[in-house]
Amino acid sequence: MNDKPADPIRLLAEEYREMNGTHVQVLPGPPSALEFARLVHISRPVLIKRMQVPAVNLWTDKYLIKKLGTQTISVAVTPDGRADAIHKGPDGLDYFVEPLVETMSMENLLKQINSNDHGDIYYLQSQNGNLFSAGDEEGGTASEFDLLRSDVVSEIDWCSEALGRQPEAVNIWVGNSKSVTSIHSDPYENIYLVVRGEKRFTLIPPTDGWSLKERFYPHARFTRSTPSGKLEITPSPVDTPQVRWSSLPDHSLSESLPEEVKPIHITVRPGEAMYLPVGWWHHVEQSDETTIALNWWYDAESQGLQWAVLRTLREVERVSHANYNEN
Amino acid sequence: MNDKPADPIRLLAEEYREMNGTHVQVLPGPPSALEFARLVHISRPVLIKRMQVPAVNLWTDKYLIKKLGTQTISVAVTPDGRADAIHKGPDGLDYFVEPLVETMSMENLLKQINSNDHGDIYYLQSQNGNLFSAGDEEGGTASEFDLLRSDVVSEIDWCSEALGRQPEAVNIWVGNSKSVTSIHSDPYENIYLVVRGEKRFTLIPPTDGWSLKERFYPHARFTRSTPSGKLEITPSPVDTPQVRWSSLPDHSLSESLPEEVKPIHITVRPGEAMYLPVGWWHHVEQSDETTIALNWWYDAESQGLQWAVLRTLREVERVSHANYNEN
Repeated sequence: MNDKPADPIRLLAEEYREMNGTHVQVLPGPPSALEFARLVHISRPVLIKRMQVPAVNLWTDKYLIKKLGTQTISVAVTPDGRADAIHKGPDGLDYFVEPLVETMSMENLLKQINSNDHGDIYYLQSQNGNLFSAGDEEGGTASEFDLLRSDVVSEIDWCSEALGRQPEAVNIWVGNSKSVTSIHSDPYENIYLVVRGEKRFTLIPPTDGWSLKERFYPHARFTRSTPSGKLEITPSPVDTPQVRWSSLPDHSLSESLPEEVKPIHITVRPGEAMYLPVGWWHHVEQSDETTIALNWWYDAESQGLQWAVLRTLREVERVSHANYNEN
Repeated sequence: MNDKPADPIRLLAEEYREMNGTHVQVLPGPPSALEFARLVHISRPVLIKRMQVPAVNLWTDKYLIKKLGTQTISVAVTPDGRADAIHKGPDGLDYFVEPLVETMSMENLLKQINSNDHGDIYYLQSQNGNLFSAGDEEGGTASEFDLLRSDVVSEIDWCSEALGRQPEAVNIWVGNSKSVTSIHSDPYENIYLVVRGEKRFTLIPPTDGWSLKERFYPHARFTRSTPSGKLEITPSPVDTPQVRWSSLPDHSLSESLPEEVKPIHITVRPGEAMYLPVGWWHHVEQSDETTIALNWWYDAESQGLQWAVLRTLREVERVSHANYNEN
């Protein structure tokens, strides 16, 4: 395994750093569609203040519990708050492990998140368009959060106009500092709004993806054999595709990066949104208090240089399998 | 010399071709600023019809001769219509040769362009912001074409608005089929409008620049020892920086490209403009009749992925010196 980038990849990373640094633009309020189109072209993270979404003023625990009532919602359960992350399996090998998904009421979720015992960790992160998804207009199925839709906008108007398309998925996220999201990138343009609490992002540009030392990991899931049993890692059938994931440790990501890679740290607070451009690597932490966020995923532009570069950056890195060929 | 691209460069070229093909968008009229901002993000050539610039309806020979009168204008002179191109020098070596620049009236230029004798070829291509340049507002010097400014717009409003900046330079070009422009790329976003005649562009995306087999050539100029003497190639002092230029032959460019590189051919006619995105390689031919064009050069966005990729593509190719190390 060669962790050094091939020459052109290293050069691109250097050119990118030289011209862009770690500057983050902060907007006092939402941009116009035209201003945002320019920002999409630059494709760097932007913090946007004073976002007007009703949820920001409405979503107290009491309101959410009353509004959702007995509606069941799907929640990720893990022993340590690391869903979709690398864990050591029962055989001592490393696996990419998806969380157990359990359904419960919002009241129960909020109770679990704020519980002080040292049991399992609950994080609402279903990210499947749980509020709105592109299929909805064609008579899509009811979402678990239909009852909250009137508090959320189904699209960010200046973003839809700038990109010339509707969101592919809109999601609600509920958790706290017990849950973290390990570093990864998405093939979407993303508007990420905080409703309550704080989200702390550690960001790395696409051109520095080589530094994350991705490996291929066998797939597994957290399961339990009885409803109140202990969570266990169950490897998936051997023909399940392996998952490409960073091998850097979640808890000390910034310290594990090569010296020349300078991560960007952005804290997003209630009523603020971050534009997270397609292909940017992000690691996400949350505040101790209950943290609620919304995000709007838009398909990225596939014509032009950017998409071709993002694909090339992913293809060009030689990535080994985690438990073999480790040198 | 290795003409094969390094692996990531080849991969990027393939990804780009796969996602973009050779499609060219044609707009029935000028786009809005927002529409154009999206096109700039895609960064592919676009043909725009029905451009409203007074010159298109005004600039007959008679009008131009009357309007400019005795004003002298700077014109490129070459023996074969190939200004800024590779020529064999008196010592048998290849040089990048700049044209001789002579001044004359518009009346004389139009006469020379349409002359049927087999003498020198004249092409107005001074491209130094000869109509407007960014320095003008700070009390810049008078241009040779001040008298034509009222027929030309100093900026393309939807383009300035989309890019959030003013043009760096606006130029007038006057020639015909005797003059061609050899393939090169510019670090500018470009709007190229045809006023009379036709311009025929052969375009290659930045990702296929490796196929142009650039070399470093020593610099020279066309000169003559007496005002009516024969044009000769005079090598510049040896400490003049060498010029990086394609070694493919101008007259059979398309046939000289590797099979997988598919050039795009666009003909621009009076009242039409082409958006030529930053970094795109272009070879330009003109119709037999007098061909007049205008172009607006805008600084390209230097933040973000695109500029870093363009710089990397240029740096990564190993380029030899033309007359040495030829293998």
